[in-house]
Amino acid sequence: MSVKITDRKQALDLIVDKYDYFLFDCDGVIWLGDHLLPSVSETLEYLRSKNKTIIFVTNNSTKSREDYLKKFEKMGIKNVNKLELFGSAYATAIYIDKILKLPKDKHVWVLGEEGIETELKEVGYKTLGGTDAKLEEDGINFNPNNPILDNLDSQVGAVVCGLTFKINYLKLSMTMQYLLKDNKTLPFIATNIDSTFPMKGKLLIGAGSVIESVAYASGRQPDAICGKPNQSMMDAVKAQLPGLKENPKRGLMVGDRLNTDMKFGRDGGLDTLLVLTGIETEDNVKSLKAGEAPTYYADKLGDLYEFTH
Amino acid sequence: MSVKITDRKQALDLIVDKYDYFLFDCDGVIWLGDHLLPSVSETLEYLRSKNKTIIFVTNNSTKSREDYLKKFEKMGIKNVNKLELFGSAYATAIYIDKILKLPKDKHVWVLGEEGIETELKEVGYKTLGGTDAKLEEDGINFNPNNPILDNLDSQVGAVVCGLTFKINYLKLSMTMQYLLKDNKTLPFIATNIDSTFPMKGKLLIGAGSVIESVAYASGRQPDAICGKPNQSMMDAVKAQLPGLKENPKRGLMVGDRLNTDMKFGRDGGLDTLLVLTGIETEDNVKSLKAGEAPTYYADKLGDLYEFTH
Repeated sequence: MSVKITDRKQALDLIVDKYDYFLFDCDGVIWLGDHLLPSVSETLEYLRSKNKTIIFVTNNSTKSREDYLKKFEKMGIKNVNKLELFGSAYATAIYIDKILKLPKDKHVWVLGEEGIETELKEVGYKTLGGTDAKLEEDGINFNPNNPILDNLDSQVGAVVCGLTFKINYLKLSMTMQYLLKDNKTLPFIATNIDSTFPMKGKLLIGAGSVIESVAYASGRQPDAICGKPNQSMMDAVKAQLPGLKENPKRGLMVGDRLNTDMKFGRDGGLDTLLVLTGIETEDNVKSLKAGEAPTYYADKLGDLYEFTH
Repeated sequence: MSVKITDRKQALDLIVDKYDYFLFDCDGVIWLGDHLLPSVSETLEYLRSKNKTIIFVTNNSTKSREDYLKKFEKMGIKNVNKLELFGSAYATAIYIDKILKLPKDKHVWVLGEEGIETELKEVGYKTLGGTDAKLEEDGINFNPNNPILDNLDSQVGAVVCGLTFKINYLKLSMTMQYLLKDNKTLPFIATNIDSTFPMKGKLLIGAGSVIESVAYASGRQPDAICGKPNQSMMDAVKAQLPGLKENPKRGLMVGDRLNTDMKFGRDGGLDTLLVLTGIETEDNVKSLKAGEAPTYYADKLGDLYEFTH
């Protein structure tokens, strides 16, 4: 059973004084869309004042790490460093470069947004698809005679799929064409498979729901999933933080989703703290079996500051 | 093993003289997109001259029966009657009216095109979503503040999903909202679940691939699938043709897809003829086990005319 953090003593003894490495999901923990959650900024500054190591781990692939730096700044959250940011777009670029070892003269077809394109370009790949305006000209009025449909790029060596707000029939069909190409052999990489995307207090379509469409259309499932709960992103975090690698129990993963954040932390050997500002409810938490329950849960991340000040 | 129809004697003895009721899929059998397949018009006239009963059974829900009449006329195929047409949009309207018995003061949320709207209106339902231009204003530039997202219609009593070329993030997210509404209790009706849609010699995204997206997003699967291979459309055909109902073996289902057309015919007790002008290849047919193989296959429907004239 998970312990709920409800007072100063618990906040100090069970959380603040107990861990050195704090991994945070962003959407639903730090902010909801463009709305900063209460006392988050104060909590982060408080943890920094105690010399805690802070890492942000997000599955939102629409933004690059540079975009995230700007977002933190705009939100008034200070002192965030690019090295503290691990996004699924970055994890995907790392996967294609280091694990898949795709030659740099190969191109990557993208169903997704600028975040993926930026991170792939940063490691040296040319991307196709993505935010290409030519795929939006007929966005709403699909034109089956669009020559783009008959001109697949033979240099494409991998297909990356993630969240896009600019989904349209042409982009989905082109992605299907690449997934079917060469007898379905091009690697099919998902940034993450979150089914929903919380925004402005609403649940919207998540990356996983975009990917399911092209998966079903092509009769394939992704060969790799780069975001949480996949451990490739955790491995990247630990590679940067040898102390966490050596002793994962000094780390706490804070998130709002059981099936991505909490699983990600647990699979990585960390303790976990679920906050109820995102997807899950207290009833959800209470109904969990032992192996699935987070170590702790709290109404919000900001409670760590509010209970201690 | 399926028998291939390759000459005059086979065409006459095994097909033309043997059946009274000919059920035809349209896309991939009669036409490919806007391109009429060879000798199809002649084959249909030849069958009519022999007093055969002809029925068209299509899973394309973007068109109503009226739209199909216009399409047949434009293609130069004569004498087609509305009573000969069974589309998945029509089957869906019949399902909601006769099986679900949704009260007529309830509204139907549509992820799909005009065909569904037209058929639902014809049986007396008001539709929402669908081709509503308000859902396309922000089609490409999704606006999370669109008030439409916060104003779900409380009168919606069912959610119908089918193929739409005008898919966008707002439509998918709105559909998810209705599927989650009232603790996921609104009936979730799929027009059909074809994964792909053949058009202009290309494979594009099919209704099933659109539906998979909102199914995954909402954690639900359709409560009913109205198109082929579901037998509700076959029941409607047989209700109109008592002779076929009494003796299904007097009927032949002609189609281009094993998992929809051939299964639809076989499950209805009819013999089946697969044509290779659509999705399947001869290698596909030859690799099938006995219970899955069509009764016959042919290079194209027009062979029935060409071999006999």
